Amino acid sequence: MIQTEQIVEYVRTAAADVFSTMLGMEIESSPGYLDKTDPAVSDGVLAFIGLAGPWAGAGAISCTANFACQICAALLMTESRAVNEEVLDAVGEVTNMIIGNFKTLAEQHLGPLGLSIPTVIYGHNFTSRSTGHNDWIVLPFHCQGEAIEIRVCLAPAKDTKHAGNAHMISSLA
Amino acid sequence: MIQTEQIVEYVRTAAADVFSTMLGMEIESSPGYLDKTDPAVSDGVLAFIGLAGPWAGAGAISCTANFACQICAALLMTESRAVNEEVLDAVGEVTNMIIGNFKTLAEQHLGPLGLSIPTVIYGHNFTSRSTGHNDWIVLPFHCQGEAIEIRVCLAPAKDTKHAGNAHMISSLA
Repeated sequence: MIQTEQIVEYVRTAAADVFSTMLGMEIESSPGYLDKTDPAVSDGVLAFIGLAGPWAGAGAISCTANFACQICAALLMTESRAVNEEVLDAVGEVTNMIIGNFKTLAEQHLGPLGLSIPTVIYGHNFTSRSTGHNDWIVLPFHCQGEAIEIRVCLAPAKDTKHAGNAHMISSLA
Repeated sequence: MIQTEQIVEYVRTAAADVFSTMLGMEIESSPGYLDKTDPAVSDGVLAFIGLAGPWAGAGAISCTANFACQICAALLMTESRAVNEEVLDAVGEVTNMIIGNFKTLAEQHLGPLGLSIPTVIYGHNFTSRSTGHNDWIVLPFHCQGEAIEIRVCLAPAKDTKHAGNAHMISSLA
């Protein structure tokens, strides 16, 4: 089992650590809250990475297009004026590192967890929805005058038995 | 190890099975191809689910807004004229079932894999990018005059050692 307070602490530790050591940036943490709704973005970048194992969930990081370019500049030492593939890769890599470090800390409580590949979405107006989860734990951060939001949801994995599954397996056996 | 041909066969089997048994729809399969680029959507729905374990990757399903509403009608027996939360949940659930069934088949070759929660994105013009993967295996399908695309990427998991990680762990020890 893992408590919400521990998830909050581990995400903050992982985020502060990655921003500081990998990007040379200090981030400030604001109070977190629980949110039933999913992240919507009006003009920015949203990165997701899946967590899977005995507990399943996802981590998500959202920020403005401008701050995504700053992350890229800090990580890859290349200037980007607009969101391009390099910027999306940089945000994906930072997401991978933060949620990967969070995962390592959470594994002390939950046992081994797997991390999927990160997916980064960029657009001017899109909504997202993640199903089958409890509330998101939302942790706002500030860095260099910009807002960043990190979200995690994590719950014991359902034993996914699908109607089609048994049939399919038996038809291939 | 798993071969591309087996991934293709398993995704087709899983998709045909879920569409037939859960939605009462028959889907037709077109030849697949490998794609280095990530799915971009001009007006539609894109659902992702992460795969994690000794192999890591993701499965993605994209379709038009109109077909997403048809999936919702077939799964939940509720009519939706526009993409709402119910439609996004239905597409997420179908993605969960198809990639979940694929996972069960792939586990014969790869050992236990975990499945993250699905995330569904809806918007009029957005791009996605998934990092750290090999090519996507892209499998186009047709159903009731509409095109659906299922993508999978799967590769041995990197042993993710992050610069920040050792430091963080030791500072908490």
